[in-house]
Amino acid sequence: MQLTVTKDMEAFHRALLTSAKEGRRLALVPTMGALHAGHLSLVEHARTLADTVAMTIFVNPKQFGPNEDFAKYPRALENDIKMAEKAGVEIIYAPDAEDIYPEGYSTSVSAGPLSTQLCGKFRPGHFDGVATVVSKLLLRAMPHVAVFGEKDYQQLCIIRRVVEDLDIAVDIVGAPIIREADGLAMSSRNTYLSAGERGVAPRLYDTLVNTGREIIMGNVTTKAAIADAIKLLTALGFKVDYLELRDSDTLEPMDGFEPPARLLAAVWLGKTRLIDNIPLE
Amino acid sequence: MQLTVTKDMEAFHRALLTSAKEGRRLALVPTMGALHAGHLSLVEHARTLADTVAMTIFVNPKQFGPNEDFAKYPRALENDIKMAEKAGVEIIYAPDAEDIYPEGYSTSVSAGPLSTQLCGKFRPGHFDGVATVVSKLLLRAMPHVAVFGEKDYQQLCIIRRVVEDLDIAVDIVGAPIIREADGLAMSSRNTYLSAGERGVAPRLYDTLVNTGREIIMGNVTTKAAIADAIKLLTALGFKVDYLELRDSDTLEPMDGFEPPARLLAAVWLGKTRLIDNIPLE
Repeated sequence: MQLTVTKDMEAFHRALLTSAKEGRRLALVPTMGALHAGHLSLVEHARTLADTVAMTIFVNPKQFGPNEDFAKYPRALENDIKMAEKAGVEIIYAPDAEDIYPEGYSTSVSAGPLSTQLCGKFRPGHFDGVATVVSKLLLRAMPHVAVFGEKDYQQLCIIRRVVEDLDIAVDIVGAPIIREADGLAMSSRNTYLSAGERGVAPRLYDTLVNTGREIIMGNVTTKAAIADAIKLLTALGFKVDYLELRDSDTLEPMDGFEPPARLLAAVWLGKTRLIDNIPLE
Repeated sequence: MQLTVTKDMEAFHRALLTSAKEGRRLALVPTMGALHAGHLSLVEHARTLADTVAMTIFVNPKQFGPNEDFAKYPRALENDIKMAEKAGVEIIYAPDAEDIYPEGYSTSVSAGPLSTQLCGKFRPGHFDGVATVVSKLLLRAMPHVAVFGEKDYQQLCIIRRVVEDLDIAVDIVGAPIIREADGLAMSSRNTYLSAGERGVAPRLYDTLVNTGREIIMGNVTTKAAIADAIKLLTALGFKVDYLELRDSDTLEPMDGFEPPARLLAAVWLGKTRLIDNIPLE
């Protein structure tokens, strides 16, 4: 099958229909572009689950707050297309905002309480924007399966919740975080980091791993381990939005340690907000 | 095709699949049961648009406020089944609330500003409940077309908005209000009316018609015609929540008269809330 790259919904639908008529199973990989090895691993995973992989590239204005980085978020469509094609993507849909949110658009989807905690507490409205655009992209593409990165772990939980709650007929699959050699979770936002910040950034992952180990070993309470971690991160120059242990499925707070759990953090390094998480099982 | 009546989602899906495999076009008529001739007209309309008509019967708790009539809302499943079958419905899906909103359910759909005006102003959360359950039922049944009554005109506009905004692949069709011989719009809630109230109730429709005529003739301003109507209704014993002229498509307020418009009212008669509307073209 040849590569289709389009910002036009009808051309996107024609490509999807061609694939469907050939009886091919469709996987969707929704992205905001500025692709890196993390995204490519999602494509790779998607290829094991389906015959055709479609990717959406859309920097969704509704998931950015008024003082957030929508304007400066990296855009690199030409390079994204090359990378996606090389990774085996057959259909790339990169719509304009006016096509996703035409005049008069007013509907929003909310996952409820899941959306107002952790990152949602610091980014009001963010996850409603995510839930809305993902619902819309899934309903526009109607894939058999859609693949999301565990890097955005709360987002993944919210999308699972919305898809199950609204009876959207798609399997949601999470794929593990891809890291730089020094442990820093790959992110399009890593390009914001100065050389100095880039040197410090991997300490977030180190701290998660060490804290996770302490929690599992149980020599200190979860609360104490987390307090120590926040103290350490702050001393290293991070401003910590949160570092918390949560249930892996429900994201409910966890005082003791009952696996499967997830240790999640959001921190600032200068003007860059980084998130990361690790499973504790 | 034989009649399927089920509260089980899988049995519902099997019936839908049987219909789909025969290449039959599916129409859905979502209802809260307590069927009357208004509902049957929706089925009749649906039959002109599709080969198989499925009906959902579900009194949706999420669209009732804490002080509203959820508990006393009429339920008459046995009779509903007879009426629906006679009208040509082939699949009846009457789920339990626990199946629509299982434990952990938390997602909601909102049409935004459309949902907080007119009835939405007096019934906070009502239309989010409607938008949520209708999205869910449409996505669960995936019909080609769904038919809703113009009696709930704002609801119809909101459903059109949500379906268009979220890219749900279904045609939304409105069907005209069915009235008693004396003009009262049919409603399952009319059974709440005392004999005395039932005698007065048709004056709502009379007043809408007369007010509409005055607005079209243009001898008085829209504002004056509506103020007179509210005065008259109040004198007749109605408590008027609102009586307003709105754009037929966007429901935007209208000072002058620019067709197509809709004259919409919600009133109380004792403990019963009645709504009605007429087109002004």
